[in-house]
Amino acid sequence: MERGKVRIALDAMGGDFAPKSVVLGAIKAHKELADNVKLILVGDKGKVLLELSQLGSENYPFEVIHAPGLITMADSPVDALRRKKNSSISLGINLLKEGKADAFISGGNTGAVMASALFTLRRIEGVLRPAITTCLPSEKGIVVFLDGGANADCKPQNLFQFGVMGSIYANSIMKIKNPKVGLLSIGVEQTKGNELILESYKLFSNSCLNFVGNVEGRDVLKGTCDVVVCDGFVGNIVLKFAESFDGFLTSLVKKRVKESLLFRLGAFLLKISIRDLRRTLDYAEYGGAPLLGVDGVCIICHGGSSPKAIKNAAKLACDMVEKEVNKTIKDKLTQNSKVLKEINELND
Amino acid sequence: MERGKVRIALDAMGGDFAPKSVVLGAIKAHKELADNVKLILVGDKGKVLLELSQLGSENYPFEVIHAPGLITMADSPVDALRRKKNSSISLGINLLKEGKADAFISGGNTGAVMASALFTLRRIEGVLRPAITTCLPSEKGIVVFLDGGANADCKPQNLFQFGVMGSIYANSIMKIKNPKVGLLSIGVEQTKGNELILESYKLFSNSCLNFVGNVEGRDVLKGTCDVVVCDGFVGNIVLKFAESFDGFLTSLVKKRVKESLLFRLGAFLLKISIRDLRRTLDYAEYGGAPLLGVDGVCIICHGGSSPKAIKNAAKLACDMVEKEVNKTIKDKLTQNSKVLKEINELND
Repeated sequence: MERGKVRIALDAMGGDFAPKSVVLGAIKAHKELADNVKLILVGDKGKVLLELSQLGSENYPFEVIHAPGLITMADSPVDALRRKKNSSISLGINLLKEGKADAFISGGNTGAVMASALFTLRRIEGVLRPAITTCLPSEKGIVVFLDGGANADCKPQNLFQFGVMGSIYANSIMKIKNPKVGLLSIGVEQTKGNELILESYKLFSNSCLNFVGNVEGRDVLKGTCDVVVCDGFVGNIVLKFAESFDGFLTSLVKKRVKESLLFRLGAFLLKISIRDLRRTLDYAEYGGAPLLGVDGVCIICHGGSSPKAIKNAAKLACDMVEKEVNKTIKDKLTQNSKVLKEINELND
Repeated sequence: MERGKVRIALDAMGGDFAPKSVVLGAIKAHKELADNVKLILVGDKGKVLLELSQLGSENYPFEVIHAPGLITMADSPVDALRRKKNSSISLGINLLKEGKADAFISGGNTGAVMASALFTLRRIEGVLRPAITTCLPSEKGIVVFLDGGANADCKPQNLFQFGVMGSIYANSIMKIKNPKVGLLSIGVEQTKGNELILESYKLFSNSCLNFVGNVEGRDVLKGTCDVVVCDGFVGNIVLKFAESFDGFLTSLVKKRVKESLLFRLGAFLLKISIRDLRRTLDYAEYGGAPLLGVDGVCIICHGGSSPKAIKNAAKLACDMVEKEVNKTIKDKLTQNSKVLKEINELND
């Protein structure tokens, strides 16, 4: 693509601490990425400008686009989009559609972002279903984990495409050469898994992917492979389970601190370690989760995203636009005859 | 049942540290439960007797039954059972079948134990599929979690029966009154989930169970409900993911210890805390996982079970026999007209 600033639209109303955390994130992003990035804040103009002025940041060169309609976390996605056409989500994604922005970032209602992106931007040519693509820490480094919850029920060809998209993402963004792809299952043998995995296995093993076979639940954090593929039902449950570890650990430690004096001495150190763990486990710290497969760079952030997480998402968006990840996905899925052949065989 | 000693058959060859850990576990169990329990060691007689003599424990009143055939963790379950009819698993389960034992405990090849139990003992009348029933720690106490991996693909009526069996188990063994049952899904709303969960939800909500609706991945360790129901594919992935947390945490802490002097000071305390966590997360510490639904008390232990875990499994087996858990399951599933009605409606 031609060199120029990457225009990133931020959903200023999305997330538990919006608009403050988003505005603060935009300021952080501007300080770090100003040479490459132009930021557009989409949200209730009055509130956004008030926030900027309260922070003494009126002079930052942000574009502010007024979006009065508010979609809450409780709203049903499809309903909300139908009724609130002037929401920050709808207008933000429209900017992408109209070519007025190169990426959209939201910590708002995930279902609404997905529905709006799918409906407005549609899928990249060749893609059957998009996938929420998260990054998890592991003993050996970052693991690309998808689908994080976009598709509760999947077909083998969906999983296979997630493998292709995840590979491209791991390669382009995480700079992993020839990423190892694994199918999340209940045993490493080809014969272990549910019907979906048994069918998908064949598709993966006959493909051009660097497929290492099935991996188990314990392999995710071990970092046995670089890309872990599963359906969105399993993926969402695993991600939310992982997130809850932090709270569980804190409650365990608190109990111990009450029990023993010795432990009270170590509590400070434990606190640091838990904070570390929390950070390591919070995928927002890796810059949010792109909805790979829709025709536009669209990044979903955690509702509780910190300004730092928003800044990291902007960095990721910038990276995805510059590395033309979506174009690579399209090329791979439409031009690569081997890949296409596999999918067509299954569609027959 | 008539009062008398509960006869527990232990698979002396099952597990990574067998027969030593099993023999040590039997000694522990005898010391703690001798008044209630008679222990039968099933395995290579020479090896078991050698172990006993090396431990100076020849005089314990264990019955030793010779089972020369060894099923390894790598063996294919069905193959192994066909070829090795004199394995400790086959002979141990036969003791149950023949009424010569009241319970069987094995830390061996899980698939082989399941296959042998299903084939030899068959299911409790009314049960469609048995489930591996594990106990997980939570912020609020023990959570009964099933299916842990017996059934990769399930139907709504399977999940429903898991709910019934899990409830009975939580009530009889964990002493939880009117246990709260949740369906593991990707959102708490009735509309959230995959096809299996959407169908199952109706079945649960029209039943006599204390159904609290869907729960999410993060609710398991929070202890939102007492019984968490899922298919064996999801369950196995979640359990193995949880197990791997320990190693992940250890590797995180090790990195920190290298980085900072301050952390080295706290490393000892962290070690204790991690050991704690490991214990809290190891379901073997809760006495292994019964295969609920087969017609006989059959408990699956972790391959790496410690003698303490084996002892706890014996305690659990004793409890399950004395509380007549299987009889309650049969009564509920064959006599409770409401439950039956639900299942029949779905089978139509």
